[in-house]
Amino acid sequence: MPIYLDNNHLTRPDEQVVEAMKPFLGANFHDPLAPYTQANLSRRAYGDAMAKLYAGIHADKKDDVVITSGDTESNTWLFNSLYIHKILTGKGGAIIISERAPASIAAACAYLEKQGAKVFRLGVNGDGVIDPQDLLDYITPRTALVSIEMVDEESGAIQPIEEIAEICAQYEVPFHTDATQAIGKIPVDVQRAPITYMTFSAHTFHGPTGVGALYIRKGTELEPMLMGSETQMGGRRAGVLNLAGIVGMGKAMELAVDALEYDVEDMREVRDALEEKVRAIPDVQIITPWSLRVPNTLTFAVQGVPAAALLLELNRSAIAATSAILYPQGDWEHTPLIDAIGADPALRHTVITLALSRMNTEEEIDEIAKALEESIALLRDESPAYPETTTEEQA
Amino acid sequence: MPIYLDNNHLTRPDEQVVEAMKPFLGANFHDPLAPYTQANLSRRAYGDAMAKLYAGIHADKKDDVVITSGDTESNTWLFNSLYIHKILTGKGGAIIISERAPASIAAACAYLEKQGAKVFRLGVNGDGVIDPQDLLDYITPRTALVSIEMVDEESGAIQPIEEIAEICAQYEVPFHTDATQAIGKIPVDVQRAPITYMTFSAHTFHGPTGVGALYIRKGTELEPMLMGSETQMGGRRAGVLNLAGIVGMGKAMELAVDALEYDVEDMREVRDALEEKVRAIPDVQIITPWSLRVPNTLTFAVQGVPAAALLLELNRSAIAATSAILYPQGDWEHTPLIDAIGADPALRHTVITLALSRMNTEEEIDEIAKALEESIALLRDESPAYPETTTEEQA
Repeated sequence: MPIYLDNNHLTRPDEQVVEAMKPFLGANFHDPLAPYTQANLSRRAYGDAMAKLYAGIHADKKDDVVITSGDTESNTWLFNSLYIHKILTGKGGAIIISERAPASIAAACAYLEKQGAKVFRLGVNGDGVIDPQDLLDYITPRTALVSIEMVDEESGAIQPIEEIAEICAQYEVPFHTDATQAIGKIPVDVQRAPITYMTFSAHTFHGPTGVGALYIRKGTELEPMLMGSETQMGGRRAGVLNLAGIVGMGKAMELAVDALEYDVEDMREVRDALEEKVRAIPDVQIITPWSLRVPNTLTFAVQGVPAAALLLELNRSAIAATSAILYPQGDWEHTPLIDAIGADPALRHTVITLALSRMNTEEEIDEIAKALEESIALLRDESPAYPETTTEEQA
Repeated sequence: MPIYLDNNHLTRPDEQVVEAMKPFLGANFHDPLAPYTQANLSRRAYGDAMAKLYAGIHADKKDDVVITSGDTESNTWLFNSLYIHKILTGKGGAIIISERAPASIAAACAYLEKQGAKVFRLGVNGDGVIDPQDLLDYITPRTALVSIEMVDEESGAIQPIEEIAEICAQYEVPFHTDATQAIGKIPVDVQRAPITYMTFSAHTFHGPTGVGALYIRKGTELEPMLMGSETQMGGRRAGVLNLAGIVGMGKAMELAVDALEYDVEDMREVRDALEEKVRAIPDVQIITPWSLRVPNTLTFAVQGVPAAALLLELNRSAIAATSAILYPQGDWEHTPLIDAIGADPALRHTVITLALSRMNTEEEIDEIAKALEESIALLRDESPAYPETTTEEQA
């Protein structure tokens, strides 16, 4: 059986999610906003799904959870609106992000810089974590936005967004967090911190692709990006509703929150067992300590072994693992993980990630570990970059 | 059995479309751009679906068909990019649209006008059709864009976009057409006219909601709106691919093109039979002559009968018909149809649309006609706006 470990990029939709979606691709395809009786089932399903999304992130009923096509659209909308309505009009100053920002934010900010916007990027420490106090070096009451991801997609490092949000609140600066890598892995609660905006996307928590959301706290302005009919999303995002997608995301959110109690702990145990086996391989550096990391992610540098070659070897064993090199961002690239944590630059192209989900099983552990050990040994044998003496010297 | 006649707003996905999508919501959920073997079936399905989209609109293999979340995103992207890169930079002048432009274009342009952009709107004649020569009053070599919808969503009027595109080509002005209301109803061929950009959306041709595209002719610049990973859509639109949606849209396109030969002619016959019965009702004005209209649409004003009341009566007979009043656009509203064609303003709120699809059947004709006749008679009996004498006076 193939083993899938690219879950920080894309998860398999839960069977219950797909079952929940099916009626709304077929007989109940109607627009939930249409007033005729034929749309009644659509309307009810839409309301139920939205209620699950609000409950899942503990949104207040007066907050807005605006459905989008995914995290990229949510983030683009926020930064686009910021540019046109705050920066171009001189109403806002700099933007503060993380140097490890998600691709769509890194790209949007690199682009805005070209247009003359001022962007500051907070670094991470050797554990891959931001120090909230660093924010004080850059934030002013004129700062247009602070945006820090809840969890680093590659290292799995959990960022201290509660402290960061509190600092933003003191300066009355809006705070955005991209929770795409957090939902389904750790509890996400918009009431626990003064979060102004929050991005998420169904495809990282066993929902369908093509649907996500931007949470907007009540009383917060944000000019729409997609405009048209005013009936959709309270005029905040036009376009015919993707009902099947919304129903799927609602169900996926419900399951993701339920899973936090048991299934995620089981997943953590599988990941931890794997982590122990990886630690036993010589000259492997696990990035971000266990206690600072989400329970599905295991990222490590393998001295002397190019990640591309290792992924290819694992692929021969029907294991789909991943690495930042698989999804290049080109000109907009954020700081590579190895550089960000200040590790040896020689490790830059040796980092791979095993990103599990609640669908991975205990039975897979030995197979993954065996493939890793054998592949690494094989590649090191062939590698001039890995002197056989290294381990002994260190020992 | 309920009868559904709101197909210009949203169509029911074809069963073959849903069947085609299912594997990609389940076992074959993988990102088609991922390099591992597990993604092979996704990759093949993605290639096949894209080939169907290219074939369906006769795109050249060097043209781009960029997948978006639907027509609203495609249109917003184009106008947003136009604003930031041409108008703000002084590289382009005015925009020319139709006064009957689709909601997302009407909204985008009303918004751009507020930002200082110059927008001209071409009117339609009494048949609901634009005179291409009117373009000559506004177009200059500095015009930033001409955008005319292929088909009017409400009247079903087919616009002379080939002549309009030719005029644009003479001035070297880019030409965009929104084909959302055309695909599946009339042949759509980007080679038959110098079309620079073309919008479409799966939900109007029996595909899923939440997926559409922007066609971009080879050699045409358009800065991306959604940025991030450069691997998706040749860097033109970031975000994890909605594979199930793309597969569904590809299948829907194939079926829509196939249907033009037989099923659409059957649909036209059903519509025509209905049209004959509507013509027999006194004081009903059918908008746009038969020969200038797509084969699924029948729009008419019913003297003395508010559309809202008539739709409610039809709803009692389990018929979901439609009207522009169901999906209000608020501040961004385009010119109401009655005003645009220069008809009696008293008819403004009396216009309803029967928008069929290839899923409507001959058996439904009598039921629809009977419900219409009875509802209209009932409402006119109660209406002070419809004197009983009118018909006799006219006779």
